[in-house]
Amino acid sequence: MSNTMQEMQTDIGLVNTIVARSALSFIDGENGVLEYVGYDIDDLARNSTFEETTFLLWNKRLPSRSELAEFTEQIRTNYDLSDRMWDIIVSLPRDASPMHALRTLTSALSLEDPGADDPSEEANARKSLAMLTKMPALIAGFDRHRKGLDLVRPDATISLSENFLYMLNGIKPTERMARAMDICLILHADHGFNASTFASLVTISTLSDMYSAVTTAIGTLKGPLHGGANQVVMIMLQEIEGLDSVEEYVMDKLAKKDKIMGFGHRVYKAYDPRATYLKTFAEGIAEDTGNTELFELSKRIEQIMDREVGSRGIYPNVDFYSATTYFSLGIDLDLFTPLFAMSRVSGWTAHCLEYLEDNRLIRPRCDYVGPHQQEYIAISQR
Amino acid sequence: MSNTMQEMQTDIGLVNTIVARSALSFIDGENGVLEYVGYDIDDLARNSTFEETTFLLWNKRLPSRSELAEFTEQIRTNYDLSDRMWDIIVSLPRDASPMHALRTLTSALSLEDPGADDPSEEANARKSLAMLTKMPALIAGFDRHRKGLDLVRPDATISLSENFLYMLNGIKPTERMARAMDICLILHADHGFNASTFASLVTISTLSDMYSAVTTAIGTLKGPLHGGANQVVMIMLQEIEGLDSVEEYVMDKLAKKDKIMGFGHRVYKAYDPRATYLKTFAEGIAEDTGNTELFELSKRIEQIMDREVGSRGIYPNVDFYSATTYFSLGIDLDLFTPLFAMSRVSGWTAHCLEYLEDNRLIRPRCDYVGPHQQEYIAISQR
Repeated sequence: MSNTMQEMQTDIGLVNTIVARSALSFIDGENGVLEYVGYDIDDLARNSTFEETTFLLWNKRLPSRSELAEFTEQIRTNYDLSDRMWDIIVSLPRDASPMHALRTLTSALSLEDPGADDPSEEANARKSLAMLTKMPALIAGFDRHRKGLDLVRPDATISLSENFLYMLNGIKPTERMARAMDICLILHADHGFNASTFASLVTISTLSDMYSAVTTAIGTLKGPLHGGANQVVMIMLQEIEGLDSVEEYVMDKLAKKDKIMGFGHRVYKAYDPRATYLKTFAEGIAEDTGNTELFELSKRIEQIMDREVGSRGIYPNVDFYSATTYFSLGIDLDLFTPLFAMSRVSGWTAHCLEYLEDNRLIRPRCDYVGPHQQEYIAISQR
Repeated sequence: MSNTMQEMQTDIGLVNTIVARSALSFIDGENGVLEYVGYDIDDLARNSTFEETTFLLWNKRLPSRSELAEFTEQIRTNYDLSDRMWDIIVSLPRDASPMHALRTLTSALSLEDPGADDPSEEANARKSLAMLTKMPALIAGFDRHRKGLDLVRPDATISLSENFLYMLNGIKPTERMARAMDICLILHADHGFNASTFASLVTISTLSDMYSAVTTAIGTLKGPLHGGANQVVMIMLQEIEGLDSVEEYVMDKLAKKDKIMGFGHRVYKAYDPRATYLKTFAEGIAEDTGNTELFELSKRIEQIMDREVGSRGIYPNVDFYSATTYFSLGIDLDLFTPLFAMSRVSGWTAHCLEYLEDNRLIRPRCDYVGPHQQEYIAISQR
């Protein structure tokens, strides 16, 4: 129904409403297809890097060799934070939740940017780059601060994924670990008009600024109905006592009609295309880190679920294998959602930049169901 | 169209889509009516207080005398910030824009709340109260910090409006000044599903938390298409050289089809019901502060606009007279939007609390218009 018809329609949750056009990600839930700007997610996971994927989302095409080199250089020289930002990190309460910290710190990046409100395309690209490149330091820095460890400044000679793991752990990761992190970042970089992306569009639609839009998105991703899911998968895996308990655990949950975390997706009725390659890769990581039990556990759950509910289109989703991958990398559970943000910031900013090309204020209606013409009685008479 | 029909509709900007039911504010743009829970905005502006109006929005009824006394007490004992928050304020760059500072500081309030992620109704009410009561200190504190002035701690014996002006200026306001501030807060407290309120609903719909939702709202309000408007009114008024230049200035703008800031409203085709009483009151404030020139200028603009475009339903809106009121109170232009946030936080939180009663994830669709099945060519081949 077009706007010109001026008929009011009700759609709670907006599940059936198209709010904008986009050329960024295409999702075919029936057939288990996800493409970024037409490139299959599996191709990108196998062959691309997070840096290149971000270039793709921001420019709607893959870079040439020299463009990628230049872009990579821009990213690396932007890793570091100002002394003031490092000081702010160590001034935060150690027991704060990392998502609240990340939202606050990302918002604070605006305070020392004299062009924070510059609405030009150039400035918006610069601000997007600043958030993308500095989020790893914000997350790793806060994690080390809360653990009472010395902060590790970034290394501008390595990739964003490698650098994140370096700042988090204080030692360089193996190649396979860095690659696992990179694959997770590629897989989470964009996914249509999910709630956090959409919330960032509502923010930018008032012609606010990129910092506000991404701050909005982080706060929205935080909810357990959205980005909080892979953390919950891991909590579930930890509940299971061992390989022998899996059958009973899963069957018991299914009998009670409890949700098995990490299975099924609102959009995908086929195998989640983001899980395919990650699953293979997770096995390698498990072998590397000697943490094969967790991977075996995951595989066993998948087998049982396939036998029981596979015919109903309930398959493992991206959260399932990213949870085990992050866990194998030694990352704390409450950093899983911040890592999702560290990846999705590329998609959030890409969507905001795209929306601004033909901006329209997003201002829906509500159906007023309250009273009318109530008489105001003075407090002395009440 | 109901959700059950599963037909896709396109509505860019969502102007014709009802996204939820609400019993908070009713707007009749044709007849110039605004009601909060059925109470006429003019009645509330004349007779109520911001504290009582907030109680009304949070409880969907006016309080009894004892309830109001208790609520007022709760508000006043919550004015002060922790030492850590005062320290964070003075650590911020002095040249940061107040809206970026307010968004960051409100987000930071969550960091020292051990129940920041407690989803209970009680906890959500507590968090709403914390943000409502502490925002005046965040705004006034940052303003004094950037001016190099000593911070003023709140006075728990006075109203929120009076206390704000006290913390801002270091001296107690006159009764009329405090009342003018209070009226402005009442008038801005709620206004249906505007962009900032809607953005906060998208955030809370993932079952994120109240701090995230309000942080989202502040970032969204910040845009010039939304909360930035009354600041722009004042910039316009300052452009006009004197009473004698008004006619030429306005006629010139109209001839060029430029927008006259503070006139017309997307919703109201009649006189903005929020402007009526404020206009009368602004005159008194102008007399009190000796700043009558500005008020005369505003009145003259209104007369010319009425003569030229009044028949087309273009009248002064709430921004027009709140701008002159704030200016007469000696408030810096870039604090006008933070003041809007300080008021609207009551409406934002009221809408989030209401939405959570029957929560549904807000996740719209996009119309994918990009390429498909692009072949990934290795970077070495590009």
